[in-house]
Amino acid sequence: MSLYSHLFYFSKHKEFSDESADLSRMLLFESSLAQSQAKCGIIPQAAAEMIAACAQIEFLDIDKLTADIRLGGNAAIPLVQQLTRIVKNNDVEASRYVHVGATSQDVIDTATVLEIKAYIIFIEQTIEILGKELYRLIKKHASTVMMGRTLLQQAKPITFGLKLAAYLEALMRHQERLQQLKSRVLSLQLSGAVGAGNAFISNEVAEHLASSLGLNVSSSWQTNRDSMVEWAGFLANLTGFCGKIATDISLLMQTEIAEVFEGAAEGKGGSSTMPHKRNPVTCAAILANAARTPHLAATMYAVMSQENERSAGKWHAEWDTLKELHLLSAGALEKCLDLMQHLEVDAERMLQNVELTKGLIYAENVSLALAKTMGKLNAHEWVEKACKQAIKSGLHLMEVCKQLNIEVENLESLFDPKQSIGNSIEIIQVIVQKYENTL
Amino acid sequence: MSLYSHLFYFSKHKEFSDESADLSRMLLFESSLAQSQAKCGIIPQAAAEMIAACAQIEFLDIDKLTADIRLGGNAAIPLVQQLTRIVKNNDVEASRYVHVGATSQDVIDTATVLEIKAYIIFIEQTIEILGKELYRLIKKHASTVMMGRTLLQQAKPITFGLKLAAYLEALMRHQERLQQLKSRVLSLQLSGAVGAGNAFISNEVAEHLASSLGLNVSSSWQTNRDSMVEWAGFLANLTGFCGKIATDISLLMQTEIAEVFEGAAEGKGGSSTMPHKRNPVTCAAILANAARTPHLAATMYAVMSQENERSAGKWHAEWDTLKELHLLSAGALEKCLDLMQHLEVDAERMLQNVELTKGLIYAENVSLALAKTMGKLNAHEWVEKACKQAIKSGLHLMEVCKQLNIEVENLESLFDPKQSIGNSIEIIQVIVQKYENTL
Amino acid sequence: MSLYSHLFYFSKHKEFSDESADLSRMLLFESSLAQSQAKCGIIPQAAAEMIAACAQIEFLDIDKLTADIRLGGNAAIPLVQQLTRIVKNNDVEASRYVHVGATSQDVIDTATVLEIKAYIIFIEQTIEILGKELYRLIKKHASTVMMGRTLLQQAKPITFGLKLAAYLEALMRHQERLQQLKSRVLSLQLSGAVGAGNAFISNEVAEHLASSLGLNVSSSWQTNRDSMVEWAGFLANLTGFCGKIATDISLLMQTEIAEVFEGAAEGKGGSSTMPHKRNPVTCAAILANAARTPHLAATMYAVMSQENERSAGKWHAEWDTLKELHLLSAGALEKCLDLMQHLEVDAERMLQNVELTKGLIYAENVSLALAKTMGKLNAHEWVEKACKQAIKSGLHLMEVCKQLNIEVENLESLFDPKQSIGNSIEIIQVIVQKYENTL
Amino acid sequence: MSLYSHLFYFSKHKEFSDESADLSRMLLFESSLAQSQAKCGIIPQAAAEMIAACAQIEFLDIDKLTADIRLGGNAAIPLVQQLTRIVKNNDVEASRYVHVGATSQDVIDTATVLEIKAYIIFIEQTIEILGKELYRLIKKHASTVMMGRTLLQQAKPITFGLKLAAYLEALMRHQERLQQLKSRVLSLQLSGAVGAGNAFISNEVAEHLASSLGLNVSSSWQTNRDSMVEWAGFLANLTGFCGKIATDISLLMQTEIAEVFEGAAEGKGGSSTMPHKRNPVTCAAILANAARTPHLAATMYAVMSQENERSAGKWHAEWDTLKELHLLSAGALEKCLDLMQHLEVDAERMLQNVELTKGLIYAENVSLALAKTMGKLNAHEWVEKACKQAIKSGLHLMEVCKQLNIEVENLESLFDPKQSIGNSIEIIQVIVQKYENTL
Repeated sequence: MSLYSHLFYFSKHKEFSDESADLSRMLLFESSLAQSQAKCGIIPQAAAEMIAACAQIEFLDIDKLTADIRLGGNAAIPLVQQLTRIVKNNDVEASRYVHVGATSQDVIDTATVLEIKAYIIFIEQTIEILGKELYRLIKKHASTVMMGRTLLQQAKPITFGLKLAAYLEALMRHQERLQQLKSRVLSLQLSGAVGAGNAFISNEVAEHLASSLGLNVSSSWQTNRDSMVEWAGFLANLTGFCGKIATDISLLMQTEIAEVFEGAAEGKGGSSTMPHKRNPVTCAAILANAARTPHLAATMYAVMSQENERSAGKWHAEWDTLKELHLLSAGALEKCLDLMQHLEVDAERMLQNVELTKGLIYAENVSLALAKTMGKLNAHEWVEKACKQAIKSGLHLMEVCKQLNIEVENLESLFDPKQSIGNSIEIIQVIVQKYENTL
Repeated sequence: MSLYSHLFYFSKHKEFSDESADLSRMLLFESSLAQSQAKCGIIPQAAAEMIAACAQIEFLDIDKLTADIRLGGNAAIPLVQQLTRIVKNNDVEASRYVHVGATSQDVIDTATVLEIKAYIIFIEQTIEILGKELYRLIKKHASTVMMGRTLLQQAKPITFGLKLAAYLEALMRHQERLQQLKSRVLSLQLSGAVGAGNAFISNEVAEHLASSLGLNVSSSWQTNRDSMVEWAGFLANLTGFCGKIATDISLLMQTEIAEVFEGAAEGKGGSSTMPHKRNPVTCAAILANAARTPHLAATMYAVMSQENERSAGKWHAEWDTLKELHLLSAGALEKCLDLMQHLEVDAERMLQNVELTKGLIYAENVSLALAKTMGKLNAHEWVEKACKQAIKSGLHLMEVCKQLNIEVENLESLFDPKQSIGNSIEIIQVIVQKYENTL
Repeated sequence: MSLYSHLFYFSKHKEFSDESADLSRMLLFESSLAQSQAKCGIIPQAAAEMIAACAQIEFLDIDKLTADIRLGGNAAIPLVQQLTRIVKNNDVEASRYVHVGATSQDVIDTATVLEIKAYIIFIEQTIEILGKELYRLIKKHASTVMMGRTLLQQAKPITFGLKLAAYLEALMRHQERLQQLKSRVLSLQLSGAVGAGNAFISNEVAEHLASSLGLNVSSSWQTNRDSMVEWAGFLANLTGFCGKIATDISLLMQTEIAEVFEGAAEGKGGSSTMPHKRNPVTCAAILANAARTPHLAATMYAVMSQENERSAGKWHAEWDTLKELHLLSAGALEKCLDLMQHLEVDAERMLQNVELTKGLIYAENVSLALAKTMGKLNAHEWVEKACKQAIKSGLHLMEVCKQLNIEVENLESLFDPKQSIGNSIEIIQVIVQKYENTL
Repeated sequence: MSLYSHLFYFSKHKEFSDESADLSRMLLFESSLAQSQAKCGIIPQAAAEMIAACAQIEFLDIDKLTADIRLGGNAAIPLVQQLTRIVKNNDVEASRYVHVGATSQDVIDTATVLEIKAYIIFIEQTIEILGKELYRLIKKHASTVMMGRTLLQQAKPITFGLKLAAYLEALMRHQERLQQLKSRVLSLQLSGAVGAGNAFISNEVAEHLASSLGLNVSSSWQTNRDSMVEWAGFLANLTGFCGKIATDISLLMQTEIAEVFEGAAEGKGGSSTMPHKRNPVTCAAILANAARTPHLAATMYAVMSQENERSAGKWHAEWDTLKELHLLSAGALEKCLDLMQHLEVDAERMLQNVELTKGLIYAENVSLALAKTMGKLNAHEWVEKACKQAIKSGLHLMEVCKQLNIEVENLESLFDPKQSIGNSIEIIQVIVQKYENTL
């Protein structure tokens, strides 16, 4: 419904998360449940087959269904009503076994888990491709010198590869988290009205059903929502990771810095009346999503205190919140991949910016070199004086040092950006090695 | 798109907030802008008329428009492109004046303010009707005795009218807030690319435009978002108010308390297999909305730090957040009105529940009566002993008092619920009077 | 307790908000209540005087009091116990009238309102001074040309005064909000155990008490928290305003932009090993506070659904949340004032940065001038070509225009920053006039 | 500083999280760093020993230190200044090696990780004890029949053990999460000014230091905060779990339900004037914490977009936020354990409440029994009629069935609570088995 779904949402939002997708997953639950119950000998095999045959999205009256939700307060009630009626029209006996023993929350929660499963697969695949892109860029820019910046101020040089390697390392941690949470999150909900099961909802049925849906068996988690919340937290964390990258890129795209750019595309981010502009359009979309997901996750945390065996309102608050989280998180990740795939790097400008302070960023180098002969304190005072003079005169610090007859060998090397990147190369190697080990 | 829009959203969500409504408001801005510019003699009158004639929702290719949003990053860019093309097909000269001097944010922000205006009217009207419902119920239940409860424990009696009167007083405060924020929130955004205006965007044009749209003139608030945030805060506050009422009703509907009920409707909140159930379906929907709106408001607060003259991401985060807030807040208010209009009150059960502790809630009455003769401390000890005996024996405290030969006159009156409601009646009168003064 | 209270908190945090301040306000409530009850003839005048004499912070055993809070669950219970014991030691009869008829929430909520009152006075005064600082800076920099930036990209020139004027206008709106919310927020809570009052808590007592504490009378708002929430929302909004300013200043302080700076102080924000650094230390503190307050406000919104006549947990969640909001909001405002009072502006660098794109920012000026003779479309194409040539060659756009034999008069004037600031001066005048009218 | 630290905070808040604890951890970092550098032959062993000898909390001027934080914007700068001065007073040469090569963020982040480590140990231990308490209670109440409630309405019977078993299963999931996140969260931060290391900060030094502090080596995570955020998310999730339990207990403690109670203690939760009250004081504290932690976690998510190599404000926002999360989460867990250790269960009242609807909760049992002979639809209609008659007449449904000459064998058994608890016992066995396997 939103004007902006193309901008912020996951591109496959219809396929993954619209009404039809939701209802199809709920129908899959109902048909699989009946078949599992038949396998366990609890309901007739013929009934299960009839239910499966009728549990098709095209048989539903979706408009009536969504309107009826207001009465019962959830989607399962009108869905089961419609499905029962459809089955009954074909086979009165079979209709007795629709949804038998199950409760609304069984179908709704399990359908949600099936949606999550689809997103997990998408995220796994996208993380993998994003990892490869980062790896490619790191290899290319391992030695590309640029300014490191702290508190938005130029600090000391790093390489662009080092910045990217820190992203890659974070990505690997997210990959690890995702693998670990899967077993908890991908759990069947099947436990009847109050979580106690019944004659139709036995442990055996649950095992068959979980297996057929590719989920884990679990006892009732109707009001113990820690795994849903963990998932929401993971998504917000992942989106925050994308937001960190978009923050960096959008700052580096600033007219006055101009070191890195989103890929250009016809009509993208430009302005005919402002030809100098190169708007970080993709970054802005990622940042918008990253600004919203923390609060969607907070909603999930805030509704954990669900009452007794089913909550009056807190469970309901999860539904659209989690869906929005899916759409925005997957959207952010997808855009982040696009960003990396089309990134433009101006290594020359990076070097120019390193020179912007006219050598002041190398003050510590000079100080350390001088300390060898005149002691740390004297060296520090000497350099402080030189820096003040450089700032006042507008001269390069190296020039000032020469004028002051500095006594160090290889003065130029102290002002060589390539020699001022600390252990950037070694650190990159460690991370790259770690990444290669995961391949 | 959500399966659950009928359950949680404002019932007129399509009319107020869907894509067409958004685009129509943007077109209204463009046609009104051209007409204002024509009135100020800045563009030809004929061009303005042509633009107005072309600025019709049915001329737009909405699918293309929403897809193009990805390139420019907002809805104004493709909208202006399409509108310009439509005008150009009719009148090349006129097409030069489409959106002239304006910026994307002018049309997007102003369209949002027009949406807000529609919601303000709805909320004003609904608050008025809700006030009348509460007034009616207060009149009816001013003397209906029930238990006051603190920390979920029975405390002392009040009347149901007193509980409702506290709602009414809060509602009047919300009404007051709404009146006060209108002048700030209903402000035109019209200031060109960087908020400085230009030859086509003068103060005079702004005055004409504001007047034709029924808004106030303001200088640029492109990155000073305090009024949008104030509005979001108001909505979350109003929804929290609805949530408070839904909390009370859902607690009072508990099987074990059963004092007040949502109105019954065919198929609403009941269960064929659990005939004793009366699910608080409307309350659950309100509570879900009230659980979500704090976090949507938090998003608005969190994106206030917008950079320079237009933000890269934080402004974008507002769009769908505010829209969701509108839909959930208006939905909650509408449902709250429905709740009050159909409320069922079981005054008899209320009285029975007052008696549930077998007189223990009147212990202080006894203590105060005894204190007149035996002093406060002795009275307190006497009553404490009597209470323990009552609890142990299961007898009513009044019986125990009699057995212990209590020496007070009119013992029965100490156990009369109607005489234990404090100043409920007087307080109600004050609030009712205040309300009547606003009519 | 925090290591960082000096960095983030309001400088008078001890005076306004520590344990002693809280308890003093609670004692003030108790002594004023007794005196009001005496004035109404409900308790003996001598008792009221004794209570007032005993209600002194130095008589309390604060360590015991805070430890005892765990038992009853709030500060009022042990406070009243200690006060009663102190009075009793002096006058047994008087001790019967301590807190008589009142409930814990009466004293706790009213003490909170008294704390709010202190903050309102501080905020009013600080807004007034901040307004004057902004006014001074606006006057000085009304014509100081700088780049306007959108999406972190250079867009078109504005003046620094225009940027500041938008802050001033927002500040005036905050001032207006503060005046409007005062009557709602500064309300006495006095209504006894369940909000119904009693023989000791009459409307007359409430009027006396409210008057002596400088508050408004109100019916019970024990579980209708809209005014507390409104206040929290205001504080978060105000802090967001400070955060917007700190965002701008910290971006403008970037090494590569370097247009505006926090005032320097010995040892502040500098680095001996990185002499070129000028860290936005004050901005960082403001931004940290602005990052936290939205979530504190969200907590307040989220706990509005308080049960029945007193909540089990939601009310409790307000206490430290609101206090933290006070400390961080007042801290942010105080630091924002400090920022403006010591702001350093480099107008020369601003002009240099305007020239950074070598005339590209004036492309539209050229296009508009050409359009008069060759029509809009041709003009646009001509300029687009010229811009591309300028970017490719590295030449200034004006030079390229000359090389291409552009046919416009006064070419230089099209590239004059002072003539490219739109209506900046006029807009500033309107805002300044509005501000002067409030003085 | 807060009046309420005893009520909401972890009881060992001073030991774990006050100023001294923070500074001690920072000093430990500095002394361990020097010793690691000495081991790697980068600084003299004697210097390292002197630094370690001087890095003692009692040598610091804490008041001056916290005041100086305002200048540099973090605690590391004044700490290193003081430490350097202390060392210098003893050994000028050694003072050159204090903090050499390191940056403020190295010491601050690592000290935070050490704080987290302490909390992890506490939480592990407490989870273990809580697990044992739940296990004990489950064993005792596996067959204790009580009503299951959904949407605050009585639904169908369960056993109290089943409710507790769902808690235990969630607790085991939290235990699993904690084990998995440890390796990511417990990571050393040591990477110098911009994350690139330097001659004094090599991989070898990092390995020695990590080992001596019991942490993992990691590359710089100065602005990649996913592990801090994961930790915050875990804490909020854990607190939400405690909140769910407190929600259930406080609802079950309601005067009208009265099935389960917090343990009584002298002066705890009672009221002398309201002897019937049993306030859920511990639950209220847990619920307050659970209402606040989602928003603290949200702050952590919201500040992930940290700029470049160190953020201006977002990193700063983490400090007190994470500390508050520690104190409230550990407090909630501790209180939850206390709740379970002293829980009072009224199994008799549970059974009485099962009978409250006079047999209506067994309607489905009757329906299923009848269906065998008269078919599902007829059975359903018959029972619906019987229920209506029962409600109207006030008679027990079993009586009505008899009057209507129901034709089922063993009518009484259909109304036997023990036979209406579904698979409660079996489900408990599965969970208990799973728990026992972890021991």
